[in-house]
Amino acid sequence: MRNHLMGFTLLLASALLAFSAPAQGDPLPSWNDGDAKTAIIEFVERVTDEGSPDFVPVYERIATFDNDGTLWSEQPLYFQVIFALDQVKAKAADHPEWATTEPFKSAIAGDMEGLMKTGMAGLAKVMGASHTDVTADEFAASVNNWLDTARHPTTGKRYDEMVFQPMLELLEYLRESGFKTFIVSGGGIDFMRVFAERVYGIPPEQVVGSSIDARFEMRDGVPTIIKEGKGLFVDDKAGKPAGIYRHIGRRPLFAGGNSDGDLQMVQYTTMPRGPEDTTPRFGLFVHHTDADREFAYDTPSHIGEFKEAAKLAPENGWLVVDMKNDWKLVYPD
Amino acid sequence: MRNHLMGFTLLLASALLAFSAPAQGDPLPSWNDGDAKTAIIEFVERVTDEGSPDFVPVYERIATFDNDGTLWSEQPLYFQVIFALDQVKAKAADHPEWATTEPFKSAIAGDMEGLMKTGMAGLAKVMGASHTDVTADEFAASVNNWLDTARHPTTGKRYDEMVFQPMLELLEYLRESGFKTFIVSGGGIDFMRVFAERVYGIPPEQVVGSSIDARFEMRDGVPTIIKEGKGLFVDDKAGKPAGIYRHIGRRPLFAGGNSDGDLQMVQYTTMPRGPEDTTPRFGLFVHHTDADREFAYDTPSHIGEFKEAAKLAPENGWLVVDMKNDWKLVYPD
Repeated sequence: MRNHLMGFTLLLASALLAFSAPAQGDPLPSWNDGDAKTAIIEFVERVTDEGSPDFVPVYERIATFDNDGTLWSEQPLYFQVIFALDQVKAKAADHPEWATTEPFKSAIAGDMEGLMKTGMAGLAKVMGASHTDVTADEFAASVNNWLDTARHPTTGKRYDEMVFQPMLELLEYLRESGFKTFIVSGGGIDFMRVFAERVYGIPPEQVVGSSIDARFEMRDGVPTIIKEGKGLFVDDKAGKPAGIYRHIGRRPLFAGGNSDGDLQMVQYTTMPRGPEDTTPRFGLFVHHTDADREFAYDTPSHIGEFKEAAKLAPENGWLVVDMKNDWKLVYPD
Repeated sequence: MRNHLMGFTLLLASALLAFSAPAQGDPLPSWNDGDAKTAIIEFVERVTDEGSPDFVPVYERIATFDNDGTLWSEQPLYFQVIFALDQVKAKAADHPEWATTEPFKSAIAGDMEGLMKTGMAGLAKVMGASHTDVTADEFAASVNNWLDTARHPTTGKRYDEMVFQPMLELLEYLRESGFKTFIVSGGGIDFMRVFAERVYGIPPEQVVGSSIDARFEMRDGVPTIIKEGKGLFVDDKAGKPAGIYRHIGRRPLFAGGNSDGDLQMVQYTTMPRGPEDTTPRFGLFVHHTDADREFAYDTPSHIGEFKEAAKLAPENGWLVVDMKNDWKLVYPD
């Protein structure tokens, strides 16, 4: 009994120690030692060391990250699209007309080829069925419910378990180093805000994404926000710097993405505004090279194409992370 | 020598103490003792005391404040409109056609009556001349330059000195109590962000306001944001809860305004969503009652009308601050 108790106490103590000081010694334990890890740590030390000529005050330490393909997986489809398809299936019984009308017919049948044939207009209708003309609270509840019940088709994991452990460590390392971390993603802002705080430690007000107009009204005496179907803002490509300007209002010091959709955000972050602009800034791209542990794709690809940004990375000094070789593990254990 | 040194040391020590504990004893020294001050302090203590049944965790402590008329003055015109008029005057030499074209003719002549006759369309043109088709950096520089040189017509003060000392103390008191403070204003987001951090201690990403679309482009190889004239979002009345949802993504615990333009924000913040929603929340309206030290107006008024919100305040338990009687001083000394 006493031995058991002592063993348990030691176990508890070591667990507590591990919890309270995860980064002591190595702030990025899931990254293999090598150039990628070294480049990140050297950059963070340069801008946070008060004795360094490159020191940057805390209030300027803004870090922005794409979500799909950068912080979590995005295959075989953006997870938000899978959510939208699942919602259409769940609502099909209430919409008998969908059985014979595209794009819903293909969506319900799981016929991706048929769905793709309906084009962007079809996809917008599928997204609209779950994302528009719904109150903010109803929408958040539907995302929460989906995360709790849906499983990824090939890994069998919860979707919010398919986040990248090395990137979680990077977010935490940056925050411990005085950075304010933001998501800047082509994904829907209201979708991501449901899990960003719990999964990434990023509060709702630090999530920037694609959005549609929200309308306020008093509904039976209760203040209510309704997600309308109008005013789509696409927070992708040139929309990302525009979204950063609108939501954050200042230039990041660190930006990370994985595809050409993140090119302009990384350009906006890192490229000097003139000869006197010498503050070092960090651009990072996650390269999906790991078919065994995750997925391998870059170009051509129907999702997350990484072509133009890959070409421009060397001359701009952007770090390209080789998922297969730079990461000890992909998903949290 | 020794006495001098000791005196200096004591002075230094007391200065340091004063600096490190400004709120010890009285967190709101510019507020007269009375019901308003007591209501604020009792609320903050209730939601921050871990032993209280009304305790609210830090991450839910969101406070939103209107700017014009709530944190700084707004008479004889919104200061941003005065800025726009001054810019039109400064640019008149480059636009000879303005001498004979409305609304510019009236704007340049300082003929407010003539300008008002051109209606909202005329005012939009005056605003547009300084706020659109300009890079983000150029716009920020023009606001900074104006703040440095312009003086208020009746007080002779810099416009950014016409902020309310009691409200600066309230912002600081809330932040010291774990609140994250935001501006949610009908004023332009890019205009306010220029001075919000310096004047209010509120960083750009915590400023929500009216906005127009921003566009990103590489201009001669330099990443550039251009403020376009399209996509106006008016962060006023029902636009305020919509702006809060879009930018912050959660319901405030404390909201302060001064006019009917803030009514929906305060409703959204304070009104229960159902019988189980018992968290106490705070709504505050600054009532401009002080013609000697500031301005006295409520209804009817061409700016900052306070009528509907004043009527609804008692039944909703919103605090109406009587500027004349509740505040020891208005502007910082």
